[in-house]
Amino acid sequence: MNDLTTHPTTAQKLGAELLGTFWLVLGGCGTAVLAGDVVGPGGIAAAFGLTVLTGAYAFGPVSGGHFNPAVTVGLAAAKRFGWRDAPGYVVAQVVGATVAAALLLGIANGKDGFSATASGFASNGFGDRSPDGYGFWAVVITEIVLTAFFVLVILGASSKRAAAGFSGVAIGLALTLIHLISIPVSNTSVNPARSLGVAWFAGGDALAQVWVFIAAPVIGAAVAGLTHAFLLGDEE
Amino acid sequence: MNDLTTHPTTAQKLGAELLGTFWLVLGGCGTAVLAGDVVGPGGIAAAFGLTVLTGAYAFGPVSGGHFNPAVTVGLAAAKRFGWRDAPGYVVAQVVGATVAAALLLGIANGKDGFSATASGFASNGFGDRSPDGYGFWAVVITEIVLTAFFVLVILGASSKRAAAGFSGVAIGLALTLIHLISIPVSNTSVNPARSLGVAWFAGGDALAQVWVFIAAPVIGAAVAGLTHAFLLGDEE
Amino acid sequence: MNDLTTHPTTAQKLGAELLGTFWLVLGGCGTAVLAGDVVGPGGIAAAFGLTVLTGAYAFGPVSGGHFNPAVTVGLAAAKRFGWRDAPGYVVAQVVGATVAAALLLGIANGKDGFSATASGFASNGFGDRSPDGYGFWAVVITEIVLTAFFVLVILGASSKRAAAGFSGVAIGLALTLIHLISIPVSNTSVNPARSLGVAWFAGGDALAQVWVFIAAPVIGAAVAGLTHAFLLGDEE
Amino acid sequence: MNDLTTHPTTAQKLGAELLGTFWLVLGGCGTAVLAGDVVGPGGIAAAFGLTVLTGAYAFGPVSGGHFNPAVTVGLAAAKRFGWRDAPGYVVAQVVGATVAAALLLGIANGKDGFSATASGFASNGFGDRSPDGYGFWAVVITEIVLTAFFVLVILGASSKRAAAGFSGVAIGLALTLIHLISIPVSNTSVNPARSLGVAWFAGGDALAQVWVFIAAPVIGAAVAGLTHAFLLGDEE
Repeated sequence: MNDLTTHPTTAQKLGAELLGTFWLVLGGCGTAVLAGDVVGPGGIAAAFGLTVLTGAYAFGPVSGGHFNPAVTVGLAAAKRFGWRDAPGYVVAQVVGATVAAALLLGIANGKDGFSATASGFASNGFGDRSPDGYGFWAVVITEIVLTAFFVLVILGASSKRAAAGFSGVAIGLALTLIHLISIPVSNTSVNPARSLGVAWFAGGDALAQVWVFIAAPVIGAAVAGLTHAFLLGDEE
Repeated sequence: MNDLTTHPTTAQKLGAELLGTFWLVLGGCGTAVLAGDVVGPGGIAAAFGLTVLTGAYAFGPVSGGHFNPAVTVGLAAAKRFGWRDAPGYVVAQVVGATVAAALLLGIANGKDGFSATASGFASNGFGDRSPDGYGFWAVVITEIVLTAFFVLVILGASSKRAAAGFSGVAIGLALTLIHLISIPVSNTSVNPARSLGVAWFAGGDALAQVWVFIAAPVIGAAVAGLTHAFLLGDEE
Repeated sequence: MNDLTTHPTTAQKLGAELLGTFWLVLGGCGTAVLAGDVVGPGGIAAAFGLTVLTGAYAFGPVSGGHFNPAVTVGLAAAKRFGWRDAPGYVVAQVVGATVAAALLLGIANGKDGFSATASGFASNGFGDRSPDGYGFWAVVITEIVLTAFFVLVILGASSKRAAAGFSGVAIGLALTLIHLISIPVSNTSVNPARSLGVAWFAGGDALAQVWVFIAAPVIGAAVAGLTHAFLLGDEE
Repeated sequence: MNDLTTHPTTAQKLGAELLGTFWLVLGGCGTAVLAGDVVGPGGIAAAFGLTVLTGAYAFGPVSGGHFNPAVTVGLAAAKRFGWRDAPGYVVAQVVGATVAAALLLGIANGKDGFSATASGFASNGFGDRSPDGYGFWAVVITEIVLTAFFVLVILGASSKRAAAGFSGVAIGLALTLIHLISIPVSNTSVNPARSLGVAWFAGGDALAQVWVFIAAPVIGAAVAGLTHAFLLGDEE
């Protein structure tokens, strides 16, 4: 999201992605787990978006502010990011998400009676594990389409044609919007790292479904990246 | 909303309008249909506004970011947009809204027991179909006045006198404000494409009333466009 | 809030103030009257702030975006606005607020059983007329202090030292914050035009108390304007 | 957060810090005490963030906009602020917070039956005094980690690499996010001045625990300040 990303070293970039994805999971899933009962889906949606909005300005100037393997894939598909740098970014994102989920579990256990498995631990799911009982295909289509639009917003708002500086606001609030739409459907992923990070701890059923929340966001992001140049053009 | 719109081709502009209006209906009406029970009118108002805020930065640099036939009319009446380009824009907007509503119907049917007709499917209405029972004239006046102010905000915030870059924030949040005021009155249209998109699927009663949500926003927008130059002046 | 206010004529400036204050009352009081039951004080607070945020970008470049007699007094006391232009601004603001309240009454009457007097019509009050039963002095002190900070935010955020363009965001969201704090105390005025506009229609008790919501905001604004230059300095 | 801080005098800087911290406590704790029942934790989270967002644009150009002893320590640890100026800033912050809490108590007493001790007066706590019963270590770790990320956002968003002007938006909304996550855990401090300001009035139990909300934020901020330069680098 920023042209000043030439100077940071690879280690600094990976550190920024790790911290940013840690922040996304601690902030978004943390609000869901610790405060979801009192702030509701609207508050959870706000929290997820604000992790990305604040991370975009805090860590984005260093790494570009992906914080999401699907975003990394989408940007690479649109030729805004090098494929050779993608594996390192994805590893940093998954590590950051997992460490954040582990810390969140530690905090949540500070209240008597907490169970990650029983509560779902902010994991994503379909069918019986969908918050409102949506079936497999509704969840798959929702995740594909919403990730595609998330990546279209990222590509458009960070293009040279767009007003400089506002991309962090637009991208963060796009994630809030996506959660407003789809928390009842899939508990909203659009981010494989976020889904994996909590699934390790939510247990068997969540982990058995997590492949959907890796595959669908990546498919949506790739489609968006590929179509962006053809459909909307790009000055870059 | 952007001066860099000279380079995109007509096809790219129409694609951007189609995608932006798709996003408006999927995001705004999608939140109402899928999550309205848990996020309430405040969450729905936030969602509609964020579709336009994010779309303005993502697609606005290509097409100008109308996403609404009334806005296209208002901008043309104010001489900010060519009348000859208006029909194409309106067709793209209605197509985008309709495809989004069809997709939303598919997702909503992924939950047992959903009925577009019984739920209203986020359609607009007056009298018995007003959420809070407001009569015909209250609805007509509300839609005219709120669309007029929406267009005044668009014209003012995107004028050369205004701070560059902020128009997407101001315009998107104006749509949130408009929904906060008027969801109980008319379920809030101010956008004929949004109203038509869902009315096809909501069925007979919604479709019988939809002419009001075409006529009233267009009247309000035209009045705003015509008065803007006379009342507030314009440097352009 | 904007340096480009030299070109507009006096009539255009007064028209912008009238429209902006109309928008403030229609949007803020309109949300309270029409949707307060479903969006709550948080939604009403958001609405008031968004009227000013959107109005600042839409009408601010023409008139400076006061929309509030107390703000006009505070800016004049700080020597940011000429005292000789203040009476015209105040008249335009009160007319805009009153016309908006009249229109709002017409819309509200479109629902069976509405009564401006019985509902309070978003009027301000103390004692029995305070939403949560706060006494006279608590209300007076709250209105003075919150208006003073509103004017300090306006003066600081629109000073030459501050980041250009962001004043509309900061000032609008300051009004949201002020409502979050004080709706239970006084129903939040900090704006004599807003208070007067609805008091005409809310009837005897509201009108009998309205002097407090003229005097307290003006006192707070004047104190803020006078202290700004001494305490924080100003480069202008 | 601003490069134009060379001209203000020391007295002006201390005045700006005092006013900004006063605003933080009056706005954030004021919303919790006066309106918490009706706006909920989401509204309180919004209020705390908006005090900093608005204060950053209003007072930040004068003093840098710390409003928080932990932030002052974190900026000094990162070599963005001089240690020799820190004591004066901290005193101004604690005085501002305390005066705001005293004024808030006066307003709250304007409603019959209010008791600062019985209500908790927006104080922070662990164990029996945690809103949701979280134990000592969960609260300590939460406060350390969230303060560390708050300072990382401040350092990143106000670095020369970041988009100019947006730091106030990012930093303010980071504080909203932090409250969304952690109000149920500790009632959210991340700010020793805010904790001390209300603890004086909340009475014995709150005052006995307040050392945690001085120590943990300062530790988190210092760690963030020290690691920022090593991990993410800094162009300054």
